[in-house]
Amino acid sequence: MSNPQILLKARPAGRPGPEHFEFVESAMPAPGRGEVLLRHRFLSLDPYMRGRMDDTASYAAPVALGGVMEGECVAEVLESQHDGFAPGDWVRGARGWQGFSAAHGSSLVKIPKDGGGVSHSAYLGVLGMPGTTAWVGVTEIGRPKPGDVFVVSAASGAVGGVAGQIARKYGCRVIGIAGGPEKCRYVKDVLGFDDCLDHRGDLPAALDAACPDGIDVYFENVGGPVQEAVLPRMRAFGRIAFCGSVATYNTRPLPPGPNLSILTRRKLTLQGFIVSDHPLAWPVWRERGAAWLRDGSLKFKEDVVEGLQNAPDAFVGLLEGKNFGKLVIKI
Amino acid sequence: MSNPQILLKARPAGRPGPEHFEFVESAMPAPGRGEVLLRHRFLSLDPYMRGRMDDTASYAAPVALGGVMEGECVAEVLESQHDGFAPGDWVRGARGWQGFSAAHGSSLVKIPKDGGGVSHSAYLGVLGMPGTTAWVGVTEIGRPKPGDVFVVSAASGAVGGVAGQIARKYGCRVIGIAGGPEKCRYVKDVLGFDDCLDHRGDLPAALDAACPDGIDVYFENVGGPVQEAVLPRMRAFGRIAFCGSVATYNTRPLPPGPNLSILTRRKLTLQGFIVSDHPLAWPVWRERGAAWLRDGSLKFKEDVVEGLQNAPDAFVGLLEGKNFGKLVIKI
Repeated sequence: MSNPQILLKARPAGRPGPEHFEFVESAMPAPGRGEVLLRHRFLSLDPYMRGRMDDTASYAAPVALGGVMEGECVAEVLESQHDGFAPGDWVRGARGWQGFSAAHGSSLVKIPKDGGGVSHSAYLGVLGMPGTTAWVGVTEIGRPKPGDVFVVSAASGAVGGVAGQIARKYGCRVIGIAGGPEKCRYVKDVLGFDDCLDHRGDLPAALDAACPDGIDVYFENVGGPVQEAVLPRMRAFGRIAFCGSVATYNTRPLPPGPNLSILTRRKLTLQGFIVSDHPLAWPVWRERGAAWLRDGSLKFKEDVVEGLQNAPDAFVGLLEGKNFGKLVIKI
Repeated sequence: MSNPQILLKARPAGRPGPEHFEFVESAMPAPGRGEVLLRHRFLSLDPYMRGRMDDTASYAAPVALGGVMEGECVAEVLESQHDGFAPGDWVRGARGWQGFSAAHGSSLVKIPKDGGGVSHSAYLGVLGMPGTTAWVGVTEIGRPKPGDVFVVSAASGAVGGVAGQIARKYGCRVIGIAGGPEKCRYVKDVLGFDDCLDHRGDLPAALDAACPDGIDVYFENVGGPVQEAVLPRMRAFGRIAFCGSVATYNTRPLPPGPNLSILTRRKLTLQGFIVSDHPLAWPVWRERGAAWLRDGSLKFKEDVVEGLQNAPDAFVGLLEGKNFGKLVIKI
């Protein structure tokens, strides 16, 4: 038996392609003391991984050239040399784009063997990093109030879809922004947003119509022209939670942004955040999100691609909005 | 006797000039019940007034065409129909670019007849709106910690000079940015900043040398290329207090700004503010600033121009950084 892996072969200057990845079959890992041998069942693909392909300082170190691409996995324990784990347990951990790994038990979080009422892969999405990101971004950064107008971009995505549903629970009027009529319909009809605007249309006009009195909270996932359309429509004392800017992850050099003098005139607060800086939020969200999934008030959608070897293509598509729902690789 | 006034004659498209102002001699105002007749002794000129000349929505209504230009004054009471004021009292109030006015007593703040150890005009600067702006921007928005690297632009100006001195009291390393060697020397030698960089030189390189580990707090007064140089040098969890952006007040349309994806990567907070939203800070600063002036630990400089008729030229110069110290008109 061998361990399939996807390595970072070269650093992309803009859009990544097959030439930046390498699929290899490596030797099976052997667990040491305190470690477990994992069989990875699902791999999460998320936009932040594009940043890890660059060799520039960011909030986390880049993936080394020739190193295994980083990513969260849901995995099954095959062997254990750690008291807390037994074969057959299911766990989540940052185990990378590969089929197997040996991991110290302390780096893993157990998840219910039977999924606890949701799919195992949900622990990579709605109950994982993206869901927790939405929880932190809304509750700690955007801090909406009942009656606020809350706008979220990439609204059908893994983070945006959850963010908007949390804002609905605050009593906000929630307006999504998504790409194309199918995603917009899903955001309105399934996720229950008050409205969803197609950024492929005339977004400034659509925002004026949907938010005639302006926007109190904007949950920013995309940057680019969507950001440019939203900023001048922010209301006095508005907050923008800067979660990401997937629209420009492949753009080098980075394009200019909006003029910021409006920050003073409107007394706006723009705040960037990274979910890993908020460790205490994870267990809170895991519990609250799970309860809302059980009572049916929280919806999610997965876009499952089969086969580790398809991860690079799926990832490139993710950066271009081609996925529909949380993108996971079934290994 | 007549009342000299400067009116807004036309709205400038970019840089204001003499053609946008009109000097007139009007009838003397007559105070009604609860009002006092004021003889204005000093008029404050501040960059925010450029915004009031535009006919666009901002945090305050624009000056009407043909209306008296707005501004804070220090004035002497000539007559009083208000129990709280007597002839000979000195007050501060938003009384406009004119020689006299009739004002309700409730709109005025008394200042010491003898100045209380500082010039009367100081109540328009270090102890007035600009000083309070610095106090709010540092204490409530920038929230520095001892050991932080604190950068402030327009460091020799009415707000920046006070902001940096307050940050020094927090135990920050304070780096000013100013235009030209004379201003930079003043900021270092008189105001006691740790360093002051000339933005007319190679500012990115100067910032790298002065702040090799990055910047924790930036007090933003100017926008433009200075902002562009500072933003990429912000340290993780840094804060930017957006007080103003005088570098682009005359620029139409507004130029683009920096790409904002760095907000997420560095977990930055950018917050705009207007001092009038913080009414409780005014008396606090008046007391604390006065104490620091008395003990010699707070310095300020005034640029006094004689004659109301010279206010338009002085104001245009202010927007171009030609003043040196807090600009006031002696009427």
